[in-house]
Amino acid sequence: MIDKTAIVSLKAQIGNNVTIGPFSIIYDNVEIGDNTEIASYCEIGVPSELSNQKKLRIGENSIIRSHSVFYESSTFGNKLITGHRVTVREHTNAGENLQIGTLTDIQGDCNIGNFVRLHSNVHIGKMSQISDFVWIYPYCVLTNDPHPPSETLKGVCINRFAVIATMSVILPGVVIGEGALIGAHSMVNKNAEANMIYSGNPATKIGPTSRIKLSDGSRKAAYPWINHFMRGYPKEVLNQWKLI
Amino acid sequence: MIDKTAIVSLKAQIGNNVTIGPFSIIYDNVEIGDNTEIASYCEIGVPSELSNQKKLRIGENSIIRSHSVFYESSTFGNKLITGHRVTVREHTNAGENLQIGTLTDIQGDCNIGNFVRLHSNVHIGKMSQISDFVWIYPYCVLTNDPHPPSETLKGVCINRFAVIATMSVILPGVVIGEGALIGAHSMVNKNAEANMIYSGNPATKIGPTSRIKLSDGSRKAAYPWINHFMRGYPKEVLNQWKLI
Amino acid sequence: MIDKTAIVSLKAQIGNNVTIGPFSIIYDNVEIGDNTEIASYCEIGVPSELSNQKKLRIGENSIIRSHSVFYESSTFGNKLITGHRVTVREHTNAGENLQIGTLTDIQGDCNIGNFVRLHSNVHIGKMSQISDFVWIYPYCVLTNDPHPPSETLKGVCINRFAVIATMSVILPGVVIGEGALIGAHSMVNKNAEANMIYSGNPATKIGPTSRIKLSDGSRKAAYPWINHFMRGYPKEVLNQWKLI
Repeated sequence: MIDKTAIVSLKAQIGNNVTIGPFSIIYDNVEIGDNTEIASYCEIGVPSELSNQKKLRIGENSIIRSHSVFYESSTFGNKLITGHRVTVREHTNAGENLQIGTLTDIQGDCNIGNFVRLHSNVHIGKMSQISDFVWIYPYCVLTNDPHPPSETLKGVCINRFAVIATMSVILPGVVIGEGALIGAHSMVNKNAEANMIYSGNPATKIGPTSRIKLSDGSRKAAYPWINHFMRGYPKEVLNQWKLI
Repeated sequence: MIDKTAIVSLKAQIGNNVTIGPFSIIYDNVEIGDNTEIASYCEIGVPSELSNQKKLRIGENSIIRSHSVFYESSTFGNKLITGHRVTVREHTNAGENLQIGTLTDIQGDCNIGNFVRLHSNVHIGKMSQISDFVWIYPYCVLTNDPHPPSETLKGVCINRFAVIATMSVILPGVVIGEGALIGAHSMVNKNAEANMIYSGNPATKIGPTSRIKLSDGSRKAAYPWINHFMRGYPKEVLNQWKLI
Repeated sequence: MIDKTAIVSLKAQIGNNVTIGPFSIIYDNVEIGDNTEIASYCEIGVPSELSNQKKLRIGENSIIRSHSVFYESSTFGNKLITGHRVTVREHTNAGENLQIGTLTDIQGDCNIGNFVRLHSNVHIGKMSQISDFVWIYPYCVLTNDPHPPSETLKGVCINRFAVIATMSVILPGVVIGEGALIGAHSMVNKNAEANMIYSGNPATKIGPTSRIKLSDGSRKAAYPWINHFMRGYPKEVLNQWKLI
């Protein structure tokens, strides 16, 4: 299960049935849950002066794809799935069923809920707060410095079910409301109300998300998206959604 | 020719005079053409449940630079050249002389013509159709989901000789006409006519591409670009262009 | 100090107390200063036909994080610090105390001053000129081709103390004045005056940078930023700043 070219610290706590691919490095201060798969060229638990010696914890049944780098001191629930070349810095606290796309860069000191979907090449600045069931698409940036460079960090807060479409920037301290939709290529400099569409540079309020219809000709509303998109969510979650 | 630290499956079909760099991994279901060079830390033919067991085929005289990841089931013509850390997912079908820049991420299920130039850090969404001689510059995104997240994918179609300048997003289902030019930092939400310039967020029609003059003081039109840019194209192509 | 899995050319000139991590490759034409640390999976001094056989020189007390690729023929002063997966192509000439963030791609043929800060995922086009104390934030692109594709390259020039906020594109040949601030998600197609704010697509002049106040409630101006942000600069620099 552990490739013979991998370098695995004897101090690392490795669960049952864990796979570690060729040329990967597992450092000392790491706990990996059962049935998790670490692919090739990964560095898991990179030591850091910023870690306060906190362990890196990766839950059970996770998949970390090749060339990814995780520092010590972060925590991930079960069923984490990553793409390739993911970077996760110190003190990232994430729930279960997180997906992190290829090239995504999580800068640390942030909280991420359950069932969050970060697509390829997303940049999560420090102090970000991301709730359950949020989707963030490629090349989006969550910022944190109101007048860069400075020592002031004001994280972005994204409430549950919100969707941030590709190439959008969220300015420091902005709150994105529950179920809000940020259109592609937007620059969001004010708070976004729940279940509203915002778009443009700077982003302006376009109207309620329910205005967008499914493109299948059915004339049904495309939002809230939980009414038609269920792939990958377990029964418990779908039952929970029915109560909303 | 095959570095002693590389891990090469005995089942892989490797052509004559193929070079494989240190710490690279070649999986089973792979066919690599003659004179091709695979640099270091590459994964070639990553197994996937989505591949239908189709082989990864890489043509002759190709160069794949370091840290790149190619899944099984894609096909590339001869003379593929990539930068570093390229990702290519399942069922990408590409012609000859494709160039893929550093960090570019091709999500699979797409068709790419001959002599296409993808610069660094381009994101090609699933279902994209890219014709011959197209240029796409850094940080461009070809999207596909009209109301994310959903099960509906409408790919972007880019016709031959079109140029997409840096940091532009093309929305789902949009068709970019032959020889059209999309200005830098644009958000394209409607079809673009052939040989026209579009720019802005959202992009609007600015006028014919022939309006842009070469910056060398010659007052010649900069478009169609094939009238002045010929680097790297073989004689057959240049002769073909003369007939257009 | 040199991991046993690293591949280090006997021709490379390696200073005292240099660390080289697992699976890294040091090529022939390289000079690495004392006390420098090269992490895992790095390629240092990749041979290139474009190098004129010029050496890659990396100064003393530097840190190059994992999965980074440096070609031969570039020069870096002391105290270079990089993130992960950095790419540096041929003929990049940089001063001291440069920081290059994760995924940043420097295309070569460029000059970079002292104490420059390039954050994650910045794209520095060829012919760029970047002065001392410049900050460039994630997903910014410095372009160079006025009518792509062409053989004409007009680099961007960024003067000292200027700040380019995230997701901004600077068009070819544009000059950014000393201490200017480019707002997030901007497309800059004209020169920017010193100590002025520019923002939008296309970017327009908003007013003097001194108009922006610190968000700590102090009512002090946030710019020039050297009046309040001093982390990581040595005493000599702070003394030099007092004379400005």
